[in-house]
Amino acid sequence: MQNKTIVQLLKSEPTHHKVMVRGWVRSFRSNRFIALNDGSTINTLQCVVDFENFEDEVLKKVTVGAAIEVVGLLVESQGQGQNVEIQVSNLTVLGEANPEDVKRTILSPKRHSLETLREQAHLRIRTNTFGAVMRTRSKLAFAVHEYFQKNGFNYMHSPIITGSDAEGAGEMFRVTNLDAKNPPLDKNGNVDYKEDFFEKETNLTVSGQLEAETYAMALGKVYTFGPTFRAENSNTSRHLAEFWMIEPEVAFYDLAANMDLAEDFIKYVITYALENCADDLEFLENRLLEEEKTKPQADRSDMKLREKLRFILENNFKRVSYTEAIDILKSSKPNQKKKFKYLIKEWGADLQSEHERFLVEKHFKCPVILFDYPADIKSFYMRLNDDGKTVRAMDVLFPGIGEIVGGSQREERYDILLEKMKTMNIDEKELYWYLDLRKFGTAVHSGFGLGFERLVQFTTGMGNIRDVIPYPRTPGNAEF
Amino acid sequence: MQNKTIVQLLKSEPTHHKVMVRGWVRSFRSNRFIALNDGSTINTLQCVVDFENFEDEVLKKVTVGAAIEVVGLLVESQGQGQNVEIQVSNLTVLGEANPEDVKRTILSPKRHSLETLREQAHLRIRTNTFGAVMRTRSKLAFAVHEYFQKNGFNYMHSPIITGSDAEGAGEMFRVTNLDAKNPPLDKNGNVDYKEDFFEKETNLTVSGQLEAETYAMALGKVYTFGPTFRAENSNTSRHLAEFWMIEPEVAFYDLAANMDLAEDFIKYVITYALENCADDLEFLENRLLEEEKTKPQADRSDMKLREKLRFILENNFKRVSYTEAIDILKSSKPNQKKKFKYLIKEWGADLQSEHERFLVEKHFKCPVILFDYPADIKSFYMRLNDDGKTVRAMDVLFPGIGEIVGGSQREERYDILLEKMKTMNIDEKELYWYLDLRKFGTAVHSGFGLGFERLVQFTTGMGNIRDVIPYPRTPGNAEF
Repeated sequence: MQNKTIVQLLKSEPTHHKVMVRGWVRSFRSNRFIALNDGSTINTLQCVVDFENFEDEVLKKVTVGAAIEVVGLLVESQGQGQNVEIQVSNLTVLGEANPEDVKRTILSPKRHSLETLREQAHLRIRTNTFGAVMRTRSKLAFAVHEYFQKNGFNYMHSPIITGSDAEGAGEMFRVTNLDAKNPPLDKNGNVDYKEDFFEKETNLTVSGQLEAETYAMALGKVYTFGPTFRAENSNTSRHLAEFWMIEPEVAFYDLAANMDLAEDFIKYVITYALENCADDLEFLENRLLEEEKTKPQADRSDMKLREKLRFILENNFKRVSYTEAIDILKSSKPNQKKKFKYLIKEWGADLQSEHERFLVEKHFKCPVILFDYPADIKSFYMRLNDDGKTVRAMDVLFPGIGEIVGGSQREERYDILLEKMKTMNIDEKELYWYLDLRKFGTAVHSGFGLGFERLVQFTTGMGNIRDVIPYPRTPGNAEF
Repeated sequence: MQNKTIVQLLKSEPTHHKVMVRGWVRSFRSNRFIALNDGSTINTLQCVVDFENFEDEVLKKVTVGAAIEVVGLLVESQGQGQNVEIQVSNLTVLGEANPEDVKRTILSPKRHSLETLREQAHLRIRTNTFGAVMRTRSKLAFAVHEYFQKNGFNYMHSPIITGSDAEGAGEMFRVTNLDAKNPPLDKNGNVDYKEDFFEKETNLTVSGQLEAETYAMALGKVYTFGPTFRAENSNTSRHLAEFWMIEPEVAFYDLAANMDLAEDFIKYVITYALENCADDLEFLENRLLEEEKTKPQADRSDMKLREKLRFILENNFKRVSYTEAIDILKSSKPNQKKKFKYLIKEWGADLQSEHERFLVEKHFKCPVILFDYPADIKSFYMRLNDDGKTVRAMDVLFPGIGEIVGGSQREERYDILLEKMKTMNIDEKELYWYLDLRKFGTAVHSGFGLGFERLVQFTTGMGNIRDVIPYPRTPGNAEF
């Protein structure tokens, strides 16, 4: 007897053979039709029971959320929308789900808001929406690995606990083992981190880039894919305190090669999702359409979810210098009419989400890569251009979501990097190893970072980043 | 003109076409033969320069560690051990490596101990040994993903920062944002975690299992692959404070299916390494042979590295109950002759590494899966057997390395789990969500954890776990 998953059975022909399936009851209509789901697909398998052949005691336990095992013949389905169904000959209830208890949870068969679902994050994965999102997330993660491995990159695990807080990419979480109330103090009355587990102050990483550079300068092509952390008190639909980041880093790549890589990579993973998550994306597309119906016309997207994904594949990412972008923005209607919250007055301004979205959604109407940003608003490690005022930075901007990738060519020249670190108060002693890369066989190299949850958001159409990671961590929230 | 990596060029025919390669100088013999490496393979490409055609000023800079770009024809190699070499027509030094500076680092071409290499972890990746280890690590990681994805598992990112410290798997690191010296206190004089970032005390995860269970009970088959942390002060060659763990979890799997999964999975990833890391494993095998020459005969392994890997593939993992193992150990020679450090006196004893290795290496001479351990020495979530004294736990034991996998069937019965939690002082309120899984459609399910670094150690033959992760974190050490 075959023990197959529902995704396999739904694809197979009606063999009239006996099969066994286990899963959870999604619905039980007319004491006859069980819609069974086992998580392998968003679709349910119809299991038809002839109630006269089963004890009432058993059938009573076939309720929403219960785990059951059915055995029966796989036959042509009489119903619509599926090829096959099971004529149940044996039915075992493995685990009940008391309807009174179910009623108090999001498992109850009615519409629950995403906010309510978030509060029961351990159960929300049993809903269609979260099943679809998390299966897609898994496939996207695999596509990331497959892309890089196929292209000769080495996966590198950069450290999570870090003794260097030099990068200044954002506020950090402290990792410690000291007594929380009465930490040991040194003779100056400061906390004595020499007594801590690592004998120094340590934090959670905000980026694996600097360590990835050390590996790129030996292995050539590397990428990281791991959790990163920001202790920023921003309670928005775009920020998490804990999120997963992908950071490729490549020796001998200049900024143009870096842009090519970013574009090629993003197109690969989106193609992979379209090809491997068809059912889930169809469901999510319809979900989004429903959701948008509740919004004013102006806020609705003019493309359906999969159209938006294909749009990315079919367009070249438009490459625009920061200087050019500023000119466009300065003379743009929303700037002239003071519709922007932050008006663009002069070169050097930091671009806000509203500006990025204007460029992508209104002006160019395609994905945009902005590059050559003013040095003053970017990080110390970015390659200074010959003009002395811009750096080889790039941001990939997407419709609806804004920045999805940020990267740069790295400053490979020892003297210039050292000077920059001094100017920007980066501790050169602490980052001696980063400087060493410029001392021993330095070379042009580049890389970028992509926040994985932003990619999942874009691909699934979920509006809130808390709904694309299993257990979101945000200010005041570390449940489960 | 082709811009290929060295691994590609070494596989190609001598085309007599012009190619361009960039990499780092490993050696420069007789002012004529440059051994060039770009990290894509352990092998170097021979680049032949006719010194009469090049400025002395340029050739002087072609020193160990320098980054160079060469252009030339790809021709038959005159030397041994490779098909092709490059007849260099253009040579550009991209980044020098001052020999005086190099001399002070592990880049200097002489033998350095693994301990010394560890102190310069940002440079050790440029050595043959670490290049081989880290390329193999990357391939193994991909094999992990490929195996699970091919078999219908969903990759799940379990949270890293966790508000629950209930599992009791080991000492944890605290994650905090509070002032280290003067934390806010509540009215009872205790640290007021309500003021902390997450408004509660949070720690770094020791395992993603409990959260993975919530996903398995909806998606069916899931796996995690992420960093986990133990704040244990164990300075051994087998322990890290930060390490990567793989944790599959499957609904409807009993312990037997769990054992099948573990065995099939391990064989898959080792096969993948043998097929995809041939050059690196050959190098590591020879490295190990050299290393073992320095050891007394008795401590040397009787199998070469790849023999040991194939041995795993060719043997069925022997399944032995704990009770059976105790009988074997009790009457074993080392127990009778008091050679074990911990003598086995009676049923219930916790097995030590020496016992595990005796069973694997001396008694059964093959990988062993021990199962049905005494409940008292195992975790609260393990499925109690009908005998009331053992649980459905399993450990996979490997030669040389001991435990590589630990897993169990999980207790799926609400009442029994609750009672166990009470007995073992596990806070049921904090783990209400874990109990919920047994309330709504509970079912038999199982999973295991595999420490990724142990797998990399086994596959690469590296004796110290600090040498199989880029930047090891251990007591007193969080450099880089």
